[in-house]
Amino acid sequence: MSGRLFIVGLGPGDPSLQAPRAAEALAEATDVVGYGPYVTRVPERAGLTRYITDNREEISRARHALQLAAEGRAVAVVSSGDPGVFAMASAVFEAIEAGEANWRAIEIEVVPGVSAMFAAAARLGAPLGHDFCALSLSDNLKPWDVVLERLTAAARVGFVIALYNPISKARPWQLGAAFERLREVLSPQTPVAFARAVTRPDERLLTTDLASAQPSDADMSTLVLIGSAQTRRLERGDGRSWLYTRRRLEVAS
Amino acid sequence: MSGRLFIVGLGPGDPSLQAPRAAEALAEATDVVGYGPYVTRVPERAGLTRYITDNREEISRARHALQLAAEGRAVAVVSSGDPGVFAMASAVFEAIEAGEANWRAIEIEVVPGVSAMFAAAARLGAPLGHDFCALSLSDNLKPWDVVLERLTAAARVGFVIALYNPISKARPWQLGAAFERLREVLSPQTPVAFARAVTRPDERLLTTDLASAQPSDADMSTLVLIGSAQTRRLERGDGRSWLYTRRRLEVAS
Repeated sequence: MSGRLFIVGLGPGDPSLQAPRAAEALAEATDVVGYGPYVTRVPERAGLTRYITDNREEISRARHALQLAAEGRAVAVVSSGDPGVFAMASAVFEAIEAGEANWRAIEIEVVPGVSAMFAAAARLGAPLGHDFCALSLSDNLKPWDVVLERLTAAARVGFVIALYNPISKARPWQLGAAFERLREVLSPQTPVAFARAVTRPDERLLTTDLASAQPSDADMSTLVLIGSAQTRRLERGDGRSWLYTRRRLEVAS
Repeated sequence: MSGRLFIVGLGPGDPSLQAPRAAEALAEATDVVGYGPYVTRVPERAGLTRYITDNREEISRARHALQLAAEGRAVAVVSSGDPGVFAMASAVFEAIEAGEANWRAIEIEVVPGVSAMFAAAARLGAPLGHDFCALSLSDNLKPWDVVLERLTAAARVGFVIALYNPISKARPWQLGAAFERLREVLSPQTPVAFARAVTRPDERLLTTDLASAQPSDADMSTLVLIGSAQTRRLERGDGRSWLYTRRRLEVAS
């Protein structure tokens, strides 16, 4: 007997940015599985079992969810933002590929969400208004050389860059090293934004430039945006500003 | 007197993927401005004026919306998906920068949405599960050489690539040229997906590989996803498959 598995994006935090489909999936679920701060965003109710696991145990969490679904349960694996962006969706499919054959018969619905990246961009203006990339700065899953190679290539050809997982206690130096590398490629005036806990009560937004960007302005809940040569800070005249990236690229001939 | 301007993402099409905040903004609006197919997704009601403009007139549409807001109206500029991704948000800020000084005093709220890219990824599995980029294939706003340079760099360093604006009547050959260039850089077995009108009644999903990818499988409503060396097609045993990108990059030493 095969149950169902929902891989649900809860959005950035503000309930008004959570898609109704996420609430529908959570209402159908018999079990919710995920990292503590996300699972606790799902209200308790009779008939719902909530499983909280540590953030580093993504594959074992995915296996647990698949096991429950294979037993006939309706399971929701929850992530913040969009579940397909440096979150649980990929881990679930990895677990299926390496797992039991009958897991491939489980009906899976990935419920997309408003990602942290786009919520951050919306609060700042439109910094992702043209070509951009999303890059995890974590070297847990890929060698640091590859991180630097991707970062350098993206900056050289003019992508705006959204840096996920910029810093943690276990990875304290990587963001500083990334800024150093970017300073070799981009102008010191390139806009840089730190967007922390966007749309949540502890939101903090900071816009600066590459010359002044400090790794200490980021923590585990921060998304770091690196502009391109087309990214502009638009002053409003009252001390506030918007950050946006021009759509048109003028190339000197 | 300054009004308000909402720059609203309507999501990919399925109403259950539209954030409640979008509906709230539309309920507050006195005027809705946008491309026809998006404006008609906003129900008519007393007190609401709907302005439909051609898709190519983004800056004049933005100026019109700003003018209305400067007159004290509550204006919603609507885009499909997320308004910050190859959509209206950037055009509005461009218009402000070049426009009247009092436009900078208008209160602007960008309402993020579920982007076409993440909705497509969710329907396919988790193809954007690791580092990825979004690239517009249109050479209306940047030289074709820059498009090719970005495409080549992104493929070489292992980003999964989401191609926006892959093809149109006015740009019939660019997608074919992009596939040719990608075949010089990536394995012929690299997964390629065509995701058309995702979550709408005329949705069409096609997964193939780079050797077989045909530009004729795309139209103006299609997002084209190019996998990386970590992107896998996971067969379910019943003819169906999922597409996902592994999070871990193993590098031969």
